Amino acid sequence: MLRLLLLLPLLGAVGALPALFRRPRSASLPAGPYVRRYLSQQIDHFGFDENRTFQQRYLVADQFWKKDNGPILFYTGNEGDIEWFCNNTGFMWDVAEELNAMLVFAEHRYYGESLPFGNESFSDSKHLNYLTSEQALADFAVLVEYLKTTIAGAKHSPVIAIGGSYGGMLAAWFRMKYPHVVVGALAASAPIWQFGDLVPCGTFFSIVTNDFKKSGKGCSESIRNSWNAINHLSSTDAGLQWLSNTFHLCSPLKTPQDAAVLKNWLSETWVNLAMVDYPYKADFLQPLPAWPIQEVCKFLKDPSLSDKLLLQNVFQAVNLYYNYTGESSCLDVSQTATKSLGEMGWYYQACTEMVMPLCTDGVHDMFEPQKWDFDALSEECYRMWGVRPRLSWILSMYGGKNISSHSNIIFSNGGLDPWSAGGVTQNISSSLVAVVIPDGAHHLDLRSRNPLDPKSVQQARAMEICLMKEWIEKARHSH
Amino acid sequence: MLRLLLLLPLLGAVGALPALFRRPRSASLPAGPYVRRYLSQQIDHFGFDENRTFQQRYLVADQFWKKDNGPILFYTGNEGDIEWFCNNTGFMWDVAEELNAMLVFAEHRYYGESLPFGNESFSDSKHLNYLTSEQALADFAVLVEYLKTTIAGAKHSPVIAIGGSYGGMLAAWFRMKYPHVVVGALAASAPIWQFGDLVPCGTFFSIVTNDFKKSGKGCSESIRNSWNAINHLSSTDAGLQWLSNTFHLCSPLKTPQDAAVLKNWLSETWVNLAMVDYPYKADFLQPLPAWPIQEVCKFLKDPSLSDKLLLQNVFQAVNLYYNYTGESSCLDVSQTATKSLGEMGWYYQACTEMVMPLCTDGVHDMFEPQKWDFDALSEECYRMWGVRPRLSWILSMYGGKNISSHSNIIFSNGGLDPWSAGGVTQNISSSLVAVVIPDGAHHLDLRSRNPLDPKSVQQARAMEICLMKEWIEKARHSH
Repeated sequence: MLRLLLLLPLLGAVGALPALFRRPRSASLPAGPYVRRYLSQQIDHFGFDENRTFQQRYLVADQFWKKDNGPILFYTGNEGDIEWFCNNTGFMWDVAEELNAMLVFAEHRYYGESLPFGNESFSDSKHLNYLTSEQALADFAVLVEYLKTTIAGAKHSPVIAIGGSYGGMLAAWFRMKYPHVVVGALAASAPIWQFGDLVPCGTFFSIVTNDFKKSGKGCSESIRNSWNAINHLSSTDAGLQWLSNTFHLCSPLKTPQDAAVLKNWLSETWVNLAMVDYPYKADFLQPLPAWPIQEVCKFLKDPSLSDKLLLQNVFQAVNLYYNYTGESSCLDVSQTATKSLGEMGWYYQACTEMVMPLCTDGVHDMFEPQKWDFDALSEECYRMWGVRPRLSWILSMYGGKNISSHSNIIFSNGGLDPWSAGGVTQNISSSLVAVVIPDGAHHLDLRSRNPLDPKSVQQARAMEICLMKEWIEKARHSH
Repeated sequence: MLRLLLLLPLLGAVGALPALFRRPRSASLPAGPYVRRYLSQQIDHFGFDENRTFQQRYLVADQFWKKDNGPILFYTGNEGDIEWFCNNTGFMWDVAEELNAMLVFAEHRYYGESLPFGNESFSDSKHLNYLTSEQALADFAVLVEYLKTTIAGAKHSPVIAIGGSYGGMLAAWFRMKYPHVVVGALAASAPIWQFGDLVPCGTFFSIVTNDFKKSGKGCSESIRNSWNAINHLSSTDAGLQWLSNTFHLCSPLKTPQDAAVLKNWLSETWVNLAMVDYPYKADFLQPLPAWPIQEVCKFLKDPSLSDKLLLQNVFQAVNLYYNYTGESSCLDVSQTATKSLGEMGWYYQACTEMVMPLCTDGVHDMFEPQKWDFDALSEECYRMWGVRPRLSWILSMYGGKNISSHSNIIFSNGGLDPWSAGGVTQNISSSLVAVVIPDGAHHLDLRSRNPLDPKSVQQARAMEICLMKEWIEKARHSH
C-alpha cells in the first residue's frame, strides 16, 4: 500500500525505479522474540499445471499462548519483509498476553524471503503470474490450517486476522473469503473502496493537503507554489544545476524531464509524511520526530517567497524527512521509504489487480493537477511487465461496497491518513464496524502503545480488543 | 457430478475412455424458449500472463421477467452442455412466472460450446489449466455483473443461484464466495462434503445398494453374486465370447482384463439407475420407465441361479437401462449416460480438485470390495493428464463442514440418491437449510412438476419457493 500511490506520481518516471529488486535489509533488523519458520506452499493454488512449491516464511511467537485452544492473532503480511511488519505492529505484542494469544506473522508471497522463483521471481510476466491477492489469501488459509493441525492444542484455536494498509485489505478479504479459517478480522487503514468509481479519486490528495493546511500557516500554499517554481528553474541548465545542488541530490538533474522525477519524489514525500504523521518520534517509513508535518511546516511559512527562496525552504522540509538522523550525505529521488517494502512487487500488483484511481486538481489539493488516466496506466504496465490492469476485477472478486452479508470485521481508519479516503468509515452492520481515529495517521492503532497516544487511538484499541474478545468467546462456545 | 464416480470403477480401465472429446449433440435438442448468448470471459481470472478471452455461452429466458428489478434465477452450469441442463431443470421454468423471474443458464467453461481453446482445450495440462471450480465461479460472477449493468431494469435484480449435482455445489459455493452477487442459492443434490474424510467413503454405494434392496426381493443379492459369475466366465476364451454375446456388446471382450471393463460398466449402470430412480417415465441419463430400479429388479429375483442364467438376467436388467427405446443394436461399455455430459472435462476435474473418496466392501453394499486408494488415483491422473490431485484443497477453499457463517443456502437431497451421502441433510442454521426428499432420486426437485411426483418433493419445492421469495423480498427492502 505504502508505495501504491507511486503509480500515479511516477507514471511518467518509472525509469527512476531501481532496475533490480533490492533485497530488504532484514539482516539488520533486531532479532525479535519470535521464531522464523517456512511452509511449502503451492506456487499456483488455482491451477494444476504448475505443481511446484515455494517456501513461505512466517514468524511465530507463542510465549503468551494458552495451549488449550487459546487464540491466534494472524498478521496477513503485505508488500514487504514480514520482519519489518512484525516489528512495526506493536499492538499485537501489546495484547498478546491479555488475550493469551499466539502471534503469527505470515509473509506475503513475492516479498521478503518468500520468493516463489528465487531471484527469477520478477524476471518476467510468466514468473510474476502468481503474485495476486487471491494466491496470497490461499497461502494464508493453507498456513492457518497447517498450524491448527500440527501445533498441539491449537486445533480449535480461534484465529483473528490482523493487518494494516494492503495487509488490512487482505485481513478483511481473508475473513470475507475464508470465514471458516478466521473468526474475525481487524483491517487497519485498509482502503478496500479505493477501486473503480466507489470513491472520488481526489479525496486522497485533499486529505494530504488538509494535514499540511492545519499543521502550519502557509504550509500547503508553499507546496502548491513550489511546482511552478520548479518548472521555472528546470527550463534552464543553470536552473537544473541549482535544483540538484539545493536538494543535495545524489544524481544531478540533467534534462527538463528530470524535473518531473523531482516533482514526483516531492509529491510522494508529502504523501508519506501524511501517512506517518504520528504523535511521537517514530521510524516507520523513515526516522522522524513527533508530528513530523508540524516540523516540516516550520520551514514552509511563507508561500509568497521567490522561487529560489521557496525551494530552499522546501529542501529544508524534505531534508527533515530524509535526513532526520543526519546520516544522509545526499538525497536519492528513487527512494522515499524504507527498503523493507518491495517496490517491484507492488508496482506489478498496481499494474494488475490493485488499480486505485487517484487524481489531483490543484484546487482542492496542493498538488499539480493530474487526471486519472487508466489508458496511460495500461500502456505503462504493458511496457513494463507485458500485462494489462483489470479495472473492475477487484470489485467483482471482493464485492465493492456490497459487503453487508459478511461479519466480524473491524475497519479502523485514521483521520489524518490519506488512505482513509478509500476506507470504511461508517458502520455497515452490527458486526462490520468502523472505528475512526480522528488524530491518527496510517494504522496508528497497530503501533505499540505510547504515552503520547491521543485518546482517540486508545479508545479505538479498547474497542478493537473488546470485539476480538467477543469473537473469541463466541468461537469457544461453538465447540 | 454424474460421471464423477467413473473415477473409482474405471480406475484401471481408463483405456475404455473415448480418445477424443465428443461434442454434445446439442443440435438435436429441441430449441427452447430462450435465446443463446455469449460473453467474453478472461481465460484466467487469477493471473495476468494469460490475457486471452473465450466465449462463454449462456441462455436467457426473460418472457416472465418483471422489468423493474424482478429476480433472476441463475443456473450455475455443471459438467455438460448447458442446453441439456436447461431442458432438464423444469423447476426453474415452472416457477419463473410465479416469481416474475428471468432465467439465465450459464455454461461451465470447458463444457458444451464454452471451450477456452476450442478443439485444443483438452490437448494437454497447459490448456486444461483453467478448468477449475474457482475459475467457473469467477465466470459466473462476471456474467451476473455484466447482465445487471447491461440489461435495462436489472440493476437491482436479486439473483438466486440454482444448480444440481456438481452445479449444486457451485451454486452453494457461489453464494459462499460471492454473496455480493447472489442473495441466496438452491443447491440440489450437492455433495459438498464428499471430500477428505468428512463422510465415510462407503455410504455412497450402500445407498445404491439399499435402493436395489427395497425395489425387489433378491435384487441386490443377484447383483452381488454377478461379479463372481463374471470372474468365472471371463477366465476362458469361450466364457469371454459368451459374455460378449450375452451382453450384446458392440466390441467383444478379448482378455480376462476386459472383464474389469465389463464389471465397471455394470457398476456404473447400477449407480446411474440409483441416481435416476424417478417416479415417472423420464429421459435424463437415458430414456427410462417410471421407477426404473423396480423394473430392472423384475429380472433379478433369483440370486441363486447358475452363473449363466444369473448373467442372462443381469443383461435383461441393464438392457432395460440402455435400450428402453429398443433402438440400440448393441451395448457400448464406454458409454453409460447421455453424451451431453463432458466426460473428458470431468475426468480432469476429478484428477485435480474434485477428489471424492469412494469405496465398497461387498458387505454393506452389493459391489466388489474396493478400497479408496489415493495413491493409485494420483498415479493414474499423472499418467493421463500430467497432474496430481490435491486432496485437501477443496476443504481449504470452501470450508468443509465449517460453513455456519454463511447464509441463504438451501441444500436439498433425495433419500434415494447416492450423492446424498456427501450432502448437507441437516439444518446448519436458520438460513442454511437442509431439505430431505425421502422418495427422491438425484435432484428430483429440479425437474418439472409431474402428476406422479411424491408428496415429499412437492413439499420440498414449496419450501424452496417460500425461502426464495423471502430472499427476494429482503433484497428488495435493501434498496
